[in-house]
Amino acid sequence: MRKIYLEDTPLSEAQAALLQRVRFQPKTERIPTQSALSRVTAEAIFAKVSMPNYHAAAMDGIAVKAEKTHGADEQHPVRLKLGEDYAIVDTGDPIPAGFDAVIMIEHVHQVDEQTVEIMEAVPPWQHIRAIGEDVVAGDMIIPLHHKLRAVDLGALLAGGIVTVPVLCKPKVAIIPTGTELIAPSETVAEGEIIEFNGTVFSAYLQEWGAEPIYRGIVQDDYELIKRAVQSAVEEADIVILNAGSSAGTEDYTVHVVAELGEVITHGVATRPGKPVVVGMVEDKPVIGLPGYPVSAYLALEWFARPLVHHYYGISEPERTKISAKIGRRIVSVMGAEDFIRVKLGFIDGQFIANPLTRSAGVTMSMVQADGLLRIPPGHLGYEQGETAEIELYRSVEQIRQTVVVTGSHDLSIDVLNALLRANNPKQNLTSSHVGSMGGILAVQKGEAHAAGIHLFDEETGTYNIPFLDTYIKEKAVVLLQLVYRQQGWIVPKGNPNSIRTVEDLTRKGITYMNRQRGAGTRLLLDYLLKQAGVKREQLYGYSREAISHLSVAAAVAGGTADVGLGIYSAAKALGLDFVPVAEERYDLLLSQSFYQSEEGEQLVSLIRSREFAHQVESLGGYSCRDSGTILYERVF
Amino acid sequence: MRKIYLEDTPLSEAQAALLQRVRFQPKTERIPTQSALSRVTAEAIFAKVSMPNYHAAAMDGIAVKAEKTHGADEQHPVRLKLGEDYAIVDTGDPIPAGFDAVIMIEHVHQVDEQTVEIMEAVPPWQHIRAIGEDVVAGDMIIPLHHKLRAVDLGALLAGGIVTVPVLCKPKVAIIPTGTELIAPSETVAEGEIIEFNGTVFSAYLQEWGAEPIYRGIVQDDYELIKRAVQSAVEEADIVILNAGSSAGTEDYTVHVVAELGEVITHGVATRPGKPVVVGMVEDKPVIGLPGYPVSAYLALEWFARPLVHHYYGISEPERTKISAKIGRRIVSVMGAEDFIRVKLGFIDGQFIANPLTRSAGVTMSMVQADGLLRIPPGHLGYEQGETAEIELYRSVEQIRQTVVVTGSHDLSIDVLNALLRANNPKQNLTSSHVGSMGGILAVQKGEAHAAGIHLFDEETGTYNIPFLDTYIKEKAVVLLQLVYRQQGWIVPKGNPNSIRTVEDLTRKGITYMNRQRGAGTRLLLDYLLKQAGVKREQLYGYSREAISHLSVAAAVAGGTADVGLGIYSAAKALGLDFVPVAEERYDLLLSQSFYQSEEGEQLVSLIRSREFAHQVESLGGYSCRDSGTILYERVF
Repeated sequence: MRKIYLEDTPLSEAQAALLQRVRFQPKTERIPTQSALSRVTAEAIFAKVSMPNYHAAAMDGIAVKAEKTHGADEQHPVRLKLGEDYAIVDTGDPIPAGFDAVIMIEHVHQVDEQTVEIMEAVPPWQHIRAIGEDVVAGDMIIPLHHKLRAVDLGALLAGGIVTVPVLCKPKVAIIPTGTELIAPSETVAEGEIIEFNGTVFSAYLQEWGAEPIYRGIVQDDYELIKRAVQSAVEEADIVILNAGSSAGTEDYTVHVVAELGEVITHGVATRPGKPVVVGMVEDKPVIGLPGYPVSAYLALEWFARPLVHHYYGISEPERTKISAKIGRRIVSVMGAEDFIRVKLGFIDGQFIANPLTRSAGVTMSMVQADGLLRIPPGHLGYEQGETAEIELYRSVEQIRQTVVVTGSHDLSIDVLNALLRANNPKQNLTSSHVGSMGGILAVQKGEAHAAGIHLFDEETGTYNIPFLDTYIKEKAVVLLQLVYRQQGWIVPKGNPNSIRTVEDLTRKGITYMNRQRGAGTRLLLDYLLKQAGVKREQLYGYSREAISHLSVAAAVAGGTADVGLGIYSAAKALGLDFVPVAEERYDLLLSQSFYQSEEGEQLVSLIRSREFAHQVESLGGYSCRDSGTILYERVF
Repeated sequence: MRKIYLEDTPLSEAQAALLQRVRFQPKTERIPTQSALSRVTAEAIFAKVSMPNYHAAAMDGIAVKAEKTHGADEQHPVRLKLGEDYAIVDTGDPIPAGFDAVIMIEHVHQVDEQTVEIMEAVPPWQHIRAIGEDVVAGDMIIPLHHKLRAVDLGALLAGGIVTVPVLCKPKVAIIPTGTELIAPSETVAEGEIIEFNGTVFSAYLQEWGAEPIYRGIVQDDYELIKRAVQSAVEEADIVILNAGSSAGTEDYTVHVVAELGEVITHGVATRPGKPVVVGMVEDKPVIGLPGYPVSAYLALEWFARPLVHHYYGISEPERTKISAKIGRRIVSVMGAEDFIRVKLGFIDGQFIANPLTRSAGVTMSMVQADGLLRIPPGHLGYEQGETAEIELYRSVEQIRQTVVVTGSHDLSIDVLNALLRANNPKQNLTSSHVGSMGGILAVQKGEAHAAGIHLFDEETGTYNIPFLDTYIKEKAVVLLQLVYRQQGWIVPKGNPNSIRTVEDLTRKGITYMNRQRGAGTRLLLDYLLKQAGVKREQLYGYSREAISHLSVAAAVAGGTADVGLGIYSAAKALGLDFVPVAEERYDLLLSQSFYQSEEGEQLVSLIRSREFAHQVESLGGYSCRDSGTILYERVF
C-alpha cells in the first residue's frame, strides 16, 4: 500500500504548468469548403478568383453608355438603337464592351424592335457589379487559426476556394476505470454503476471541437490501466482517465502516470474537484479526473478545454457573467477555490442566486444549474443579500423568462411546467424543494415568484391561510387553489407489515422515514400523532429526514424504512403500495406582482385549463375540482 | 410581362403572419442517448432506475454499524471483528445488510486477520452514497422540448435511459436558381457566378439544428422552378428558394408560390433584404430569398431561424448586445428598418462602432462584421459620437482583445495579423482601409489603436511627420517605421502600352485608375505629375477612384484601366507587370496609450522580429531594414 498525499496546488498554477509543458504539433488536412463549418484554418486563406470576376449586370434591363443618356427627362426622352447604343442584359450577364451602365427594364420604353426610349439620365456604373466588388483575387479572406462560421464558407467559395486546409481535430482518448462500472443499461443490479461520465466527456469534447475516442471500461487493476494508457498515448493527442485519481489504495492513476511519464500536479486547491492528476506520458498530456460526476466535469473544463483550444491556437470563449443577489448564506473554507452551482431567478427586477447541493455526486445539480459561483481561495463566502458574480450556464433571456417556483414539491408542478413549455417555448418553470414554510419565506423575501404549500393548521383545521396571516409581512400575495391530493402510508408491495393506523407505526421493528422540518407532510404526521395520542419518540426513525415524497418512497423501496407518509404518485412511481390517510389541499402562493404580470396570467390560465386537470388527475390520487380558485389575497 | 409591386410590410408583421400560419407536426425518433447531443426531447423524460440504486460505499474501507464505534478515540480504540462488526468494501460496493457507515481504509488499524482497531467514532451514513442520491427512479430528469446538453446525457444514462425520444430534425430544402450559377470552382469564366449562398444557408441551418437538403441549381425558367418547388414540398418541412424573389421580369418566385399555394408577404420594409417572398405551398412554408448574399443571409435569419425554433418548440437565442459610440455618421431613410454591419473596437475604455459597406453584394462585409446595428423604420440614423445598441457577431472578450488598425492598406499589416494570432491566440488585429489621412484622423479621434500611413510631403521631401505636426492635436502618439516599399506602375502582363514615365500616362487611349482622396499613393502621383509638369486633366481617368492597391490591380486585370500606381505585391497577386517608380516609407502611427499597453508592446516586438522582416520581404517589393524604429513621439 503506497501512501500518497494530495497537493493543494492553486488551480491557475496547475493549468499554467500544464500548458507550459505541452507542445502540440497538429496535422493539417484539406477538406471541401462545403463541409468545413466549425473547423479551424491551418493557414491564412487568399482568394483565387475575384467575385464577380467580370463587370456584371446587377439588374435585368439594358446596358448603355452613360454619357449617351445625358439630358434625358420626361420632356426630352432619349432614343437608343439596339447593338449600337444598348444591349439587352439579364442580372449576372457580363456588360458588353463599350457599355458602362445598366437601366432597369421597368424604366425602358420599347418603341420598335430595334429602338427604346428612356426618360432619365443615368450615372456611369449604375446597376453594375464591378469586378472584385465582393472579393478581390489575392485578398486574404480568412486568417490563420480561424474557426470557420457559416458566412466564412460563402466568402471562401466566392473566392474560388473549393477545399480548405484545416487542422485535424485533436484526438482525445477517454478511459473509464472501475470494476463496478457497466455499460448504459435500463436495469442495474446491486453493486453495478452505469458508466455515464465518458458520454458526458465525449459530448463536451465534441462541442469544443475535439474528436473523442471512447476506449471502453477498464477494471481497477494497475497493469490493465497501465496498458490502456500506453496504447491510448499512441493513438491520441490527449488522454483522459476517469476515477482513481485520488490517493486511496485502489487509486492507480497517479502511479501509472508516474511510472510511464511524469506527474505535473496531483491535487488542486478546489472544492469539489481536488483529486486531479495532471501529467505527461510520451509527450502527451494525461489527465486523471475524479469519479464523482460534478468534480469530473468541472476538472475536464479546467484542463481539457484549455488544451483543445491551445491545440487550435484559438482563445477559449468565456461565459457571460451577471451580478446576482445571494438568496441563501454560502460558507466557503479558506485555502480552496469553491465552485458552487446555483439556480437563478429574475424577480422584481433583479437576479437572485440560490445554491444547489454541493455534493459532487449529484449529476442532476449540473442539469438544474443556471450558473456557477466561483469563490476564490481567500474568501469566506457570502451572506444572504450580498451580491456576487455568476458565470452563466443558460442565457440571460432564458433566465429572465423563467418562472421560479419553490416550496413543497408536487408532481402537479411538473405537469404545469410541461404545459407551460408546450404552450410558449419562451417560457420556463424551475422548481426547487425547500418545504412549505421555506416556500412562504422565499415569496416573502422576493426569492421566488411562487411557492407550492400545504400547511395544515391544527387549531382552525384549515390549510395555509393561517400561516400566511402570521408569516407574510409587507408583501402583496395571492393564494390559488392548485390541487387536492391523497396523503397516505407508503409501504412495500403487499403491505407486509399491515400498516393501517398511526398506532401501527409504533410497533417494534417498524422503521419510519420522516420529512424535513417545515414540510407540510411532517406537520400532517404531527397532527395525526396528536389526534391518536401517540408521542413522537414512539416512532423509530422520526428524526430521519427525507427531502421529498420520492425520497421517502426510495427509502421504503431500498429497505432502509418500512413506512413513510407521502403522496400516491410517489408510491406508484416506485411500484409500492399506498394506504390513504387524508385528502389535503396543495395551494400555490404567488407574489402579487407576478400574479399581475403577463407570465403570471398565462400560468393561472393554464392552472384553470381542462388539460391541466386531465393530466394531473390521470396521475392518480389527485382531484382538480377547485383548481385556480382564489383563496386569499393580501394587497397594500 | 406581369407587373408586380413589392409591399413594404414591417418585418415583425411579416414574421408574425408566417408563424401564425405554420402548423408543424414534427415526427419523433428514438435514438441512443450517447448520440443525442443537441437534439430536442419529444417528451419529458423520467428516470427508470435510481442512481445509485443501492446504498454504496463512497470510499475504500470497512462497512460498520455506526453505533458500535461510539466512544472510540486515540485513548480508547474500539476493536471490531470481521463478519460480525465489519465487512471489507471498496468504492461502489453495496453496503452489506446490517451496516450503516463506512470508515476509510486509511483510518483502520489491522490487529490480526479477523480484527481491526479504530480510533474515532463515526456518524451513521458516513461515506455512504444513499439510494437515489443523484437520481431517484420516477423523477423527471429532462423536460419536454429541451435541447440536450452534455451534462443532460449523463443524467439520462444515470437514470437508466439508454434511448431517448427526440424530434426528427426539420428538413429544409434549398433550391438555388439562376442561369449564371455554377457549382463551386477554382476557375470562373465570364458570365458565371459561383453558387455559394446554398452552402451558407446549409451551415446556418445546421447550426440551428435543422437538416438542410441541397437540391442543386435550377435554371431561370418558370416551369423548372415550379417543378422544383413541387417536389421539394413533398420531401421537406420548409423550402428555401434563392434569388428571383423580387419583382423583375425574371423573378419567378412570387408567381410560382402564388400558383402552387399562397403568398403571405412579398416585400418587407427593410434595407437590405426587401425583396423577400413568404408563402405556403401544401401547408409547407416557402421562403424566397434575395440573391445578394447579405440580403439573403439576413432574410434567412428573419424567417428560417424562427421557423426552425418554432418547429422544436424552443425559444430563439438572442445575441448579446452592447452600447457603442458611432464612429462615422450613419444615415437612414424613414419607413425602412436598416441593418448595418459594423466593425467594433474597444479603445480608451469604450466600444466604437464603424459602419462597413452597406452594399448587399459584399459577403466579405459579413465576414468582417463584429456586429449588427438595427435602425428602426422611424429613425433617421446616427451622428458621429452618438451611442447605439449593437447586436454582437463576436464575443465581447474577442472584441476587447482586438487591435484596431486603420489608415492605408498594406500587406505587411496582414503579415502582422498572422504573426500576432500565431503568437497569442487571444489577440487579434482588424484592419480597415480609409487612406492615410483617414487613418491619422481616426487615431486622433480615438477610433483606432493604430493607423498605417504613407503621406509624402512635397515641401520637405519627407514622409508622414509634417502631417502629424499639422493634424494631430491633443493626442499623444508614437510613429513607428513599419516597412519601405516599392510603388510603381501596375500594367498588364508584358506591358503592352510600354508605360515607363508619367508622360506615358497622357498618351491617347491610355485609361488611368486613380486612388481615393486622402490616399498616400494619390499624393505620390500628384507629386510625380508636378515634377514632370503634367496636369491632372491630361490623365484620362484621374477622377476614377479605387479604394486599395488590389482594386487598382483588379481594374487593370479586368481591362477597365490600362495602368494605375500601386505596390508590387498587388501586381504580383493578379499576375500583372510592375514598373518601379519610387521607394516610399509606410509607417505605423500608434496612440501612446496603446503603445504603452501590453498589447501594444507585443505588437511592437513583433514588428522588430526577424520573422516579420523575413515574411514581409519574401512578398517582394519590400525592405524591413528599419522596421520598428521610433520616428516621432508626441507626448503631453
